[in-house]
Amino acid sequence: MLENVRRMRPLIHNITNNVTVNDCANVLLACGASPIMANDLSEVEEIQDISCGLNVNIGTLAFSDIKAMIAAGRRANELGNPVIFDPVGAGASRLRREAVGEILSNIKCSVIKCNGSELRTLAEHKASKGGVDAEVSDGTTEDNIKDAVMLAKSLAAEYKTVVAVTGAIDIVTDGEKTYCAYNGRPMMSSVTGTGCQLSALMAAFIAANKDKKLIAALAAVCAMGVCGEIAFERMTALDGNASYRNYIIDAVYNLDGDTLDKKARFKAI
Amino acid sequence: MLENVRRMRPLIHNITNNVTVNDCANVLLACGASPIMANDLSEVEEIQDISCGLNVNIGTLAFSDIKAMIAAGRRANELGNPVIFDPVGAGASRLRREAVGEILSNIKCSVIKCNGSELRTLAEHKASKGGVDAEVSDGTTEDNIKDAVMLAKSLAAEYKTVVAVTGAIDIVTDGEKTYCAYNGRPMMSSVTGTGCQLSALMAAFIAANKDKKLIAALAAVCAMGVCGEIAFERMTALDGNASYRNYIIDAVYNLDGDTLDKKARFKAI
Amino acid sequence: MLENVRRMRPLIHNITNNVTVNDCANVLLACGASPIMANDLSEVEEIQDISCGLNVNIGTLAFSDIKAMIAAGRRANELGNPVIFDPVGAGASRLRREAVGEILSNIKCSVIKCNGSELRTLAEHKASKGGVDAEVSDGTTEDNIKDAVMLAKSLAAEYKTVVAVTGAIDIVTDGEKTYCAYNGRPMMSSVTGTGCQLSALMAAFIAANKDKKLIAALAAVCAMGVCGEIAFERMTALDGNASYRNYIIDAVYNLDGDTLDKKARFKAI
Repeated sequence: MLENVRRMRPLIHNITNNVTVNDCANVLLACGASPIMANDLSEVEEIQDISCGLNVNIGTLAFSDIKAMIAAGRRANELGNPVIFDPVGAGASRLRREAVGEILSNIKCSVIKCNGSELRTLAEHKASKGGVDAEVSDGTTEDNIKDAVMLAKSLAAEYKTVVAVTGAIDIVTDGEKTYCAYNGRPMMSSVTGTGCQLSALMAAFIAANKDKKLIAALAAVCAMGVCGEIAFERMTALDGNASYRNYIIDAVYNLDGDTLDKKARFKAI
Repeated sequence: MLENVRRMRPLIHNITNNVTVNDCANVLLACGASPIMANDLSEVEEIQDISCGLNVNIGTLAFSDIKAMIAAGRRANELGNPVIFDPVGAGASRLRREAVGEILSNIKCSVIKCNGSELRTLAEHKASKGGVDAEVSDGTTEDNIKDAVMLAKSLAAEYKTVVAVTGAIDIVTDGEKTYCAYNGRPMMSSVTGTGCQLSALMAAFIAANKDKKLIAALAAVCAMGVCGEIAFERMTALDGNASYRNYIIDAVYNLDGDTLDKKARFKAI
Repeated sequence: MLENVRRMRPLIHNITNNVTVNDCANVLLACGASPIMANDLSEVEEIQDISCGLNVNIGTLAFSDIKAMIAAGRRANELGNPVIFDPVGAGASRLRREAVGEILSNIKCSVIKCNGSELRTLAEHKASKGGVDAEVSDGTTEDNIKDAVMLAKSLAAEYKTVVAVTGAIDIVTDGEKTYCAYNGRPMMSSVTGTGCQLSALMAAFIAANKDKKLIAALAAVCAMGVCGEIAFERMTALDGNASYRNYIIDAVYNLDGDTLDKKARFKAI
């Protein structure tokens, strides 16, 4: 999966937030893909025309972005390009709930990538009390894994898409086949944008492996988790979340297929 | 003060500039708080509803942001959430002077956090000739400390707020009680956004210590300075401002109450 | 050239993209200049009034930015401030082609800084098939250097400006005198924004050396390449593009005139 990305070097079009946009660009370069960021309604369709995939993220949504996201997404659908949708903070405001509704009813997404809180908002159509980070009660652990899997499967079935839910345990499902993945480190949530980076990575993995969406999404989830582990091993006593941020992207840059194969921990359930 | 942040994990809503927005998010995570960035007028009030504080920064102001800043600030005032205002480059343009006027007349700020040049603009209602960095003649040093304290106190009294002025010597005052703080390193001004990070940090410190605004603001000023010192000790011959940027946030991540207590240098004047 | 930047500390006004804006600010601080970012039409002229140069970059262009870019550029022209124009992804969309046309017909640029693909778009007035990175077939190497030099010279003559083209071999020309520069490392293209950083650096170099535009542009090209080399020497087995990004800016921070003189590799052709 990863090696296909490095061979194909897919151009990924990102309409994303301005907090983590630099990290998304660098993680795409790190995995061998090429990033382009373009948000203006007047160019998003043309940019999609030259791209191999679309990554849509509502982390710092402006009302005017929604139209551009939908225009780009429809063009991606026409072209058969994968669309990854990251509904950051989906439940935090009416604007975000409406954006999610508009996007899901107008675009066929290849993957919805969310955290536990966002999953709950999307699957149960209810508002969240938290911000963009998962609420503790919504984190996926051994205790609540069954509920989370059920929600993820129903969301996947509802939108005929792959759903990837990040947490202590990650869930990747197309509604029929479901995987749990166990890589990663709790400290990854101390770095802003590791979730956004995963969505960008996923767009590259699926663009380069178009006929294997579910497994490509799972590979991206494992790759991010494995890189979180490799990066964590580098940490010294003086390092904190800023160095960890760099080490994670560095690890993606240095990751090869064999290492990913060896370190990925997942199982079908 | 710091330990209260780590215990409470306050969600801080930031309406800030796109230059340093990633650093603000990571420094909030580093100190134990949780960041959310939201600028669109249609969601800022709802985002404030789920937040514990507001950080407003005009570093890359768009005209349309002013309304969102005021809407968010008013809601924060209604909720009793602290508002930190960072009038970046206050004197550099009519747009910024008007934004400052609108914000200060519509929002009750808990802290105005500025540099020497911005202080002069706000306190003396005059334009600056410089950009977003303090002019050398406006830096606070032993020589001009009395003038700067007087200006800061008058600004604090005018707006019934805490004023924190950064420089070689930092000043924190509520108009009655005044502290000078001596931590930090000159090299911090070679990293873009250390001032913006301080404002974000201050929002977290005050959100977690709401009944002690003055001391919480002072603690944040000292924390940033102490972290600048700790980070500087890590610097090697090949390191420059990019590594220093990371080391500062790393130091915030690793800072504990005891270290802050021991290293903070300040006095009431 | 570099030492003049460090002596003068020119304030550089940037209207740039939100992907690499933080790196542009930090690289300007690293070379001894001072950055200000301001995009809003209502303030760009005033911001230019207090600045020594303008850096315009269309990497994440919004339609509304074009007016602000032209207003700022015209004011820079009136003031005799240098304007560096970086037509990122020039051929990728109609919006970008129109922006390029508007900017080049309304502003006198001191330097157009582009990659091989963008050069082709600008010089041959045709669309590109790629994104913001140079297409492999457009990279300047020993094989196609003559064609690229011819295109660069004709573009420089058409707009009476300096043209700087980055690639394996960099070209800097004013249409009459032409230099090739050989510094840099292929891995620089794995870090998002090294091109944007070069444009920012160039604005500082020319602002501090206004009567020597061609040589100042060449010096900036060499400085960026030399720093890419110095940074590369620091790389360890675990480092990747994120650490490399930091090391490059660190190297700019530590660069002195002697080292630049000694390591710069260029020749007049």
